[in-house]
Amino acid sequence: MTNQSHTSSAAAPADTPTSVTVLGLGAMGQALAGAFLDAGHPTTVWNRTPGKGEDLVARGATRAATAGDAVRASDLVVVCLYDYDVSRAVLGPIAADLSGRVLVNLTSDTPERSREAAAWAAGQGIDYLDGAIMVPVTVIGTADALLFHSGPKAVYERHASTLKALGGNTVHLGEDHGLAAVYDNALLDFFWTSMSGLVHAFALAGADGVKGADLAPYLSALLSIFPPAIESTAIEVDSGEYPGEQAPLVTEAANVDHIIHASEHRGLDVESLNGIKAVLDRAIAKGHGADGWTAIIESVRAPEPAH
Amino acid sequence: MTNQSHTSSAAAPADTPTSVTVLGLGAMGQALAGAFLDAGHPTTVWNRTPGKGEDLVARGATRAATAGDAVRASDLVVVCLYDYDVSRAVLGPIAADLSGRVLVNLTSDTPERSREAAAWAAGQGIDYLDGAIMVPVTVIGTADALLFHSGPKAVYERHASTLKALGGNTVHLGEDHGLAAVYDNALLDFFWTSMSGLVHAFALAGADGVKGADLAPYLSALLSIFPPAIESTAIEVDSGEYPGEQAPLVTEAANVDHIIHASEHRGLDVESLNGIKAVLDRAIAKGHGADGWTAIIESVRAPEPAH
Repeated sequence: MTNQSHTSSAAAPADTPTSVTVLGLGAMGQALAGAFLDAGHPTTVWNRTPGKGEDLVARGATRAATAGDAVRASDLVVVCLYDYDVSRAVLGPIAADLSGRVLVNLTSDTPERSREAAAWAAGQGIDYLDGAIMVPVTVIGTADALLFHSGPKAVYERHASTLKALGGNTVHLGEDHGLAAVYDNALLDFFWTSMSGLVHAFALAGADGVKGADLAPYLSALLSIFPPAIESTAIEVDSGEYPGEQAPLVTEAANVDHIIHASEHRGLDVESLNGIKAVLDRAIAKGHGADGWTAIIESVRAPEPAH
Repeated sequence: MTNQSHTSSAAAPADTPTSVTVLGLGAMGQALAGAFLDAGHPTTVWNRTPGKGEDLVARGATRAATAGDAVRASDLVVVCLYDYDVSRAVLGPIAADLSGRVLVNLTSDTPERSREAAAWAAGQGIDYLDGAIMVPVTVIGTADALLFHSGPKAVYERHASTLKALGGNTVHLGEDHGLAAVYDNALLDFFWTSMSGLVHAFALAGADGVKGADLAPYLSALLSIFPPAIESTAIEVDSGEYPGEQAPLVTEAANVDHIIHASEHRGLDVESLNGIKAVLDRAIAKGHGADGWTAIIESVRAPEPAH
């Protein structure tokens, strides 16, 4: 499932740059097309509504009149549309044009939508890859840019070096088309939950007159314990053992209770914190009170039936 | 409120090391007493139940028969008990012995409990500081150890150099006795919420067969965007402006929706994620849809009335 491999840069012939088509010229689509242009690829662009991508055309891109025209211009078609419903609406009528070509969908959604799209593409004879862009618009095309791809390895390798124009850190995660979205969703789960806690922390301290600028250096210092925490959590998740000698779950639950009480006392929202506390309490009720934090995965996997 | 100052190391006369008393010999209390001993301070210890701290005595600590005896041995009394209820039960009967001495309570709780304790101490003529220990037991006494203190600056300075034996990164946050708990609660709010998202992310990817070891490197790589996120969030919180050009709240809300749908589809707990989504939805309903993520602070500060 996770036969990962980093892109080798020697996959396509260097003499004739591969032609590329980009469907969808929102901010991200424009960045993708711009990165292909910068890497010397003849680039055809198309957008549902007119008026977007003028500067791409000025930089040498060809604007196609229809999505079908755009698709017929290249063997590699990259899609960056609003969501899978829009993407289906755009691609459905031009399935025959896509047949035999490589379609890379970088639209973000769930693994289920990715697998549905792959099943549809397979039925149309389209060589399909599903991808996820893990960096903001401004990072696209740089050596640091992380992009996930999943689907048949052979299809990926047909255009691996071209796709690398979008980001130096381009990764093929495995054959399962859902994997890019799985990794995408998991990373964003961690990220947005953390950013939610971050804003809540500023609100909590702010309620007692502490300025963001005064709290921020300590929040940043706290980040030094995140890398070892990620590493040890991964080991514990994989082994199913959650040692809690240093910090048992019952102690952490008391800490979370203090935060909830302090938040309630200040009239702040506690819905998300209560959700965390409920997971903790269920883990303790299941006998994990002396285990470490990672033991909460047992109750994350077993939510309360009535909800 | 946040007139912070790092401890100078030249506060007390170096010729006669200050005597210190430590009440409470749990794992953390033992680490504190050990750090004082290592720094050459005559250290008196006491615990509610016998049998703890044998090795401290072997290292030169004096064991007091009663809490009153322990307190009378030193001008500086450091308390590290289970919670404020226990601490009140221990300190109440020996208030007269504490009068005129410096009492430093490092027990963790809410700012309200700290301020209550300070009010009680003021009534007893006790010079009170409230503190919070931000590092695990094993880090106590090292240059990196972060400890917060709050309360009268003059009281703090009376024993600043001695308190620094507990951690090189010892900070006086301000006169308000609640500040140490405010910072403590806020940092733990960010930390435990993040760690909750971390475990949830492993559960989400794990449901599709992705091993913790395969996901961990990408989670770690993601941490590179946390320091700039903390910095920009602090600026936005302080200014009340939440620019969202690059990533408006409506887009992030769609991302969080994908994570919730993917989690539900895998039978995972979504209570905490739903809490985050509710905050996002309220912020969007208030007209912050085109603003950035930090705009959620407006709905964190205004929870739904019926809950």
